[in-house]
Amino acid sequence: MARVFSFSLTLLIFFHCYTAQQFPNECQLDQLNALEPSHVLKSEAGRIEVWDHHAPQLRCSGVSFTRYVIESKGLYLPSFVNTAKLSFVAQGRGLMGKVIPGCAETFQDSSVFQPRQGRQFEGQGEEGQSQKFHDMHQKVEHIRSGDTIATTPGVAQWFYNDGQQPLVIVSVFDLASHQNQLDRNPRPFYLAGNNPQGQVWLHEREQQPQKNIFSGFGPEVIAQALKIDLQTAQQLQNQDDNRGNIVRVQGPFGVIRPPLRGQRPQEEEEERVGNGLEETICSARSVDNLDDPSRADVYKPQLGYISTLNSYDLPILRFIRLSALRGSIRQNAMVLPQWNANANSVLYVTDGEAQVQIVNDNGDRVFDGQVSQGQLIVVPQGFSVVKRATSDQFRWVEFKTNANAQINTLAGRTSVLRGLPLAVITNGFQISHEEAKRVKFNTLETTLTHSSGPASYGRPRVATA
Amino acid sequence: MARVFSFSLTLLIFFHCYTAQQFPNECQLDQLNALEPSHVLKSEAGRIEVWDHHAPQLRCSGVSFTRYVIESKGLYLPSFVNTAKLSFVAQGRGLMGKVIPGCAETFQDSSVFQPRQGRQFEGQGEEGQSQKFHDMHQKVEHIRSGDTIATTPGVAQWFYNDGQQPLVIVSVFDLASHQNQLDRNPRPFYLAGNNPQGQVWLHEREQQPQKNIFSGFGPEVIAQALKIDLQTAQQLQNQDDNRGNIVRVQGPFGVIRPPLRGQRPQEEEEERVGNGLEETICSARSVDNLDDPSRADVYKPQLGYISTLNSYDLPILRFIRLSALRGSIRQNAMVLPQWNANANSVLYVTDGEAQVQIVNDNGDRVFDGQVSQGQLIVVPQGFSVVKRATSDQFRWVEFKTNANAQINTLAGRTSVLRGLPLAVITNGFQISHEEAKRVKFNTLETTLTHSSGPASYGRPRVATA
Amino acid sequence: MARVFSFSLTLLIFFHCYTAQQFPNECQLDQLNALEPSHVLKSEAGRIEVWDHHAPQLRCSGVSFTRYVIESKGLYLPSFVNTAKLSFVAQGRGLMGKVIPGCAETFQDSSVFQPRQGRQFEGQGEEGQSQKFHDMHQKVEHIRSGDTIATTPGVAQWFYNDGQQPLVIVSVFDLASHQNQLDRNPRPFYLAGNNPQGQVWLHEREQQPQKNIFSGFGPEVIAQALKIDLQTAQQLQNQDDNRGNIVRVQGPFGVIRPPLRGQRPQEEEEERVGNGLEETICSARSVDNLDDPSRADVYKPQLGYISTLNSYDLPILRFIRLSALRGSIRQNAMVLPQWNANANSVLYVTDGEAQVQIVNDNGDRVFDGQVSQGQLIVVPQGFSVVKRATSDQFRWVEFKTNANAQINTLAGRTSVLRGLPLAVITNGFQISHEEAKRVKFNTLETTLTHSSGPASYGRPRVATA
Repeated sequence: MARVFSFSLTLLIFFHCYTAQQFPNECQLDQLNALEPSHVLKSEAGRIEVWDHHAPQLRCSGVSFTRYVIESKGLYLPSFVNTAKLSFVAQGRGLMGKVIPGCAETFQDSSVFQPRQGRQFEGQGEEGQSQKFHDMHQKVEHIRSGDTIATTPGVAQWFYNDGQQPLVIVSVFDLASHQNQLDRNPRPFYLAGNNPQGQVWLHEREQQPQKNIFSGFGPEVIAQALKIDLQTAQQLQNQDDNRGNIVRVQGPFGVIRPPLRGQRPQEEEEERVGNGLEETICSARSVDNLDDPSRADVYKPQLGYISTLNSYDLPILRFIRLSALRGSIRQNAMVLPQWNANANSVLYVTDGEAQVQIVNDNGDRVFDGQVSQGQLIVVPQGFSVVKRATSDQFRWVEFKTNANAQINTLAGRTSVLRGLPLAVITNGFQISHEEAKRVKFNTLETTLTHSSGPASYGRPRVATA
Repeated sequence: MARVFSFSLTLLIFFHCYTAQQFPNECQLDQLNALEPSHVLKSEAGRIEVWDHHAPQLRCSGVSFTRYVIESKGLYLPSFVNTAKLSFVAQGRGLMGKVIPGCAETFQDSSVFQPRQGRQFEGQGEEGQSQKFHDMHQKVEHIRSGDTIATTPGVAQWFYNDGQQPLVIVSVFDLASHQNQLDRNPRPFYLAGNNPQGQVWLHEREQQPQKNIFSGFGPEVIAQALKIDLQTAQQLQNQDDNRGNIVRVQGPFGVIRPPLRGQRPQEEEEERVGNGLEETICSARSVDNLDDPSRADVYKPQLGYISTLNSYDLPILRFIRLSALRGSIRQNAMVLPQWNANANSVLYVTDGEAQVQIVNDNGDRVFDGQVSQGQLIVVPQGFSVVKRATSDQFRWVEFKTNANAQINTLAGRTSVLRGLPLAVITNGFQISHEEAKRVKFNTLETTLTHSSGPASYGRPRVATA
Repeated sequence: MARVFSFSLTLLIFFHCYTAQQFPNECQLDQLNALEPSHVLKSEAGRIEVWDHHAPQLRCSGVSFTRYVIESKGLYLPSFVNTAKLSFVAQGRGLMGKVIPGCAETFQDSSVFQPRQGRQFEGQGEEGQSQKFHDMHQKVEHIRSGDTIATTPGVAQWFYNDGQQPLVIVSVFDLASHQNQLDRNPRPFYLAGNNPQGQVWLHEREQQPQKNIFSGFGPEVIAQALKIDLQTAQQLQNQDDNRGNIVRVQGPFGVIRPPLRGQRPQEEEEERVGNGLEETICSARSVDNLDDPSRADVYKPQLGYISTLNSYDLPILRFIRLSALRGSIRQNAMVLPQWNANANSVLYVTDGEAQVQIVNDNGDRVFDGQVSQGQLIVVPQGFSVVKRATSDQFRWVEFKTNANAQINTLAGRTSVLRGLPLAVITNGFQISHEEAKRVKFNTLETTLTHSSGPASYGRPRVATA
């Protein structure tokens, strides 16, 4: 009996392997869930919350997702990943720096040339002797809630929270893109700091503390390369450091930065040179704010607004092949049902909650429930989705795996029903000409409409759930 | 003994999994077959015939293939897929409509503005009251045998057979392209209609009837979104409809359409705007006819002709990364041996039959037989193929997985042998200078030549078959 | 007991399959190795040495690697592959020909039109009668040590060694690129010659001798297609030929070729037409030499030089999405630690040896050892690497899986540390402002520096090795 069991199980596995092998990117999604982080990496001045990229909906979409919570005075130490990354500042404000290979240190204290002035250079080290020397480094930008930040693979990035409330940043990593030339696992590389818990999201790897890159080289190699003494080289390895990757800055944080204004300074740089990636990428704009209703793409005062950011707005998105959408709707506003034509969409709730229904290719309702602040849900390509705010405000951000993600709506003035001839509607649904006219023309809105309330959406009709 | 068996089988599976895992896209093709549909989905006014996309040659090519047979007065209800699609009208004529997201309803009855004229608007509903109202919708095109139709992912499309004979359309779906952001399974999404048999081509999924998208939402959501009553909303769900996805139109089929001429009307639109995909895609030409011998790329009156359609002819193909070739040859004409340099090729026979030989990378003949009307065969990248008509007429269409598929011929004026120096040929094949000259220069044709007849091609030499 | 074992093993397999299926491209590299060829295919006048593409580091990088050793008077017979290929001439000199589909035979003996002159046409066959006839074929180029050669998929290529020493060519095949439309196995297709050992690098396939393409067709098909007699057709099948794919040329090798000069003749063709791939690809430059120090990108007389070749230098690389780097450094010179931002890198040592350390994303040193002439090592995307010459000269070539591969250095004037503000460095590494200044500014070189010698690099710190 046990033998028979073993044998049949084996056969079952054989079948499983055989079919699984053919379709490595499993998207047979009969049920979706609102996802929360599965791992929390605690640091001295914040935490990194990681969603399990093995979750079927994330695996199908080919992305991983992480939330960074950086406390006041917290510094997220420079790290890089081997994928394209799109981040959204969900809360707070701070500073952000990227180091792009081969680009010049364009932020320079003018007092290097005109000694003894030192404007805009706060906190010049500890000793008087260091006042003779001033810093130069690559661009540092102010970031604030609503900013959407594009980062190319291999580029080191750091964040500093110079506000009072926590700085919360959510990031999507495009594992399935051709820019990731490794496998479909997220891989942060630390330049400084460490992660004593190890890469807990990697099931296959035996967990060991994750150290910074310098830690892997011999100290004398570092000493030779940086022309420093062995002791400092060992210091760079952060061996006895247990602060994690978000550390607390003691005293002032002295970096050269432009004054903070309402107007983003980098918007003046919008004229870019066009001769070769290497030259343009140094000054390429990589941040745009999606929280300014005056720039909304869809705006209805009573209902809310929706802003999109694609490669026409921010050309670097053409390179990283991701785009974003920011939505903010009021109680009982409804986003008309729609599907993503050419992208997967990763939806993260920043405020409030909503009732969401998602329908798959088989016509089954694979999600019917609440999503609320801090939760994530994936809407795969082609799946239809409807959202209805059930709190005073429902605000979310969607990351889409296409530089110019397109949607198709099921209702409204630009919907697929409007594009179909009446004869197709009458014959398709076996309704009268008059009914078809109502179906086609009654809703004049394009995206947002009123809904009658958060009442039950009817009986659940999920297949296997 | 049973234990040993279980253990060894387990090991075998282990090995199988291990190697399979490394090479998920299996192309170790030791034998090809002429394929016929594996599943037939019957509808009220036609049928959908699906080829098994698990067949090794289709799996290797990363495509799936479907044939639509729409009877006279049959309407293939709007549906969309999450992949790029290239279709060919193998027989019949009809109307085709696509609904492209965000594009305007450019087909409008002029009598909306000038009441009581109603030109070119046939069949205005059932009642007199509806005569006051006229329709507007997106572009509707006449299609006829030979038309090749490009469709981008997520775009809803419908067909109507307004002729007398069945309208037969074959479509290839590019599962392996980056435009498919789900897994490598074909996924039609139905806007109307249904498929009571379910997605039988998906081995893993427990089969349930496939319903339309509206069916998955709660009726009150649909009612709210479309601002219609609950009863009509339920009607849209096609719950009690068992007509399938191809329905019979009762009475006239009233859509606005341009008059049918020999000249395709959309060819006048060839000047397109160049500022952004969204603006151009609304009027982008997506259909071209390959059955007009006056536009053939290769033409020999006694032998036949070959026409190709690539992204230089039809720019939308650059976007969907597929191209097509139409061939029509007479009895005993031979298409000189050739290989696809940068594409897989999916060959579908529309008329007649031919003797085909295909040779793989090991130099093995992996196919040697007849292919006839309605059959499909795949010629993977690099594999060499020769075709010889064995009926009065042999006509086929090839779908290629590259917007500009290139071939290399083994014989003829533009062949690889012509490009090689004589010294390479004499040394490579150990033949004399005179023989090499004959090998290189005797065949003056480029693509088509006479063959001496359908006699046996010699002994089979397939490796393991 | 055995049952339990079988059951648990089965579960283990289940787990293995399950996880493996999710991550088909395994890059959990805890240890790298310097790799040597695993298979040698012997031919009459040389040998083909194949690296095992199942090796984890090659599998992760999605490439395969081959070395061709062609003896003096050896002719590597024309073959093609279904992937993009980038080759480097490691030693010797010779002739190279490619046959690009549809391109004209631009190398033509002028005496075809002006009989009885025959300039630059050496070795006109065996007989007097053949003197009346002269050849025409596609471009033939001189190649020499340092030449880097780009080849597009499906294009047949041959090499001839007209020097005295062996001609050694190493090639990387981009299996993971979208241009390979089959699976991730290397597949050479032979136009002439054969390989009696079979495709030994394919674990799954039952090995059989690999024959040329003509061999797979029926001889009468070849006879008809080439309009030759059956006997010559059989001769083309190389059935009784056991010379392999590199054959010895008897007597002079008579091909039309430009005179050999220091100046490459094709550099005059650099003005290229811009209208359509088909027209430009015939005259597109595909070879560039990386051994000329006068064209070096980084040059330090005492230390060595580094030259890169990307799509700005050689536009065809944009199409095949590969690039190359050539390095040559002296004893005790060090290439500063760096990582590949957007590419995997395949490093092949052409001369001498070096001490190399490689660090992965976990901060573990996954390689710490010597690599020497003829060995290969992979540096995956994001992994940091430092190289230090331990012989008089260390010379290598790196193939990178991106048309414009970018590096980021950990030390030096353009390094990531230079781009970071001092405050990030002091806080990140808990060092003083003065130390941070030294870390940031002490090394003024960008890429190459002196190192103090090949002494031990410290204790090994590889995780699981």
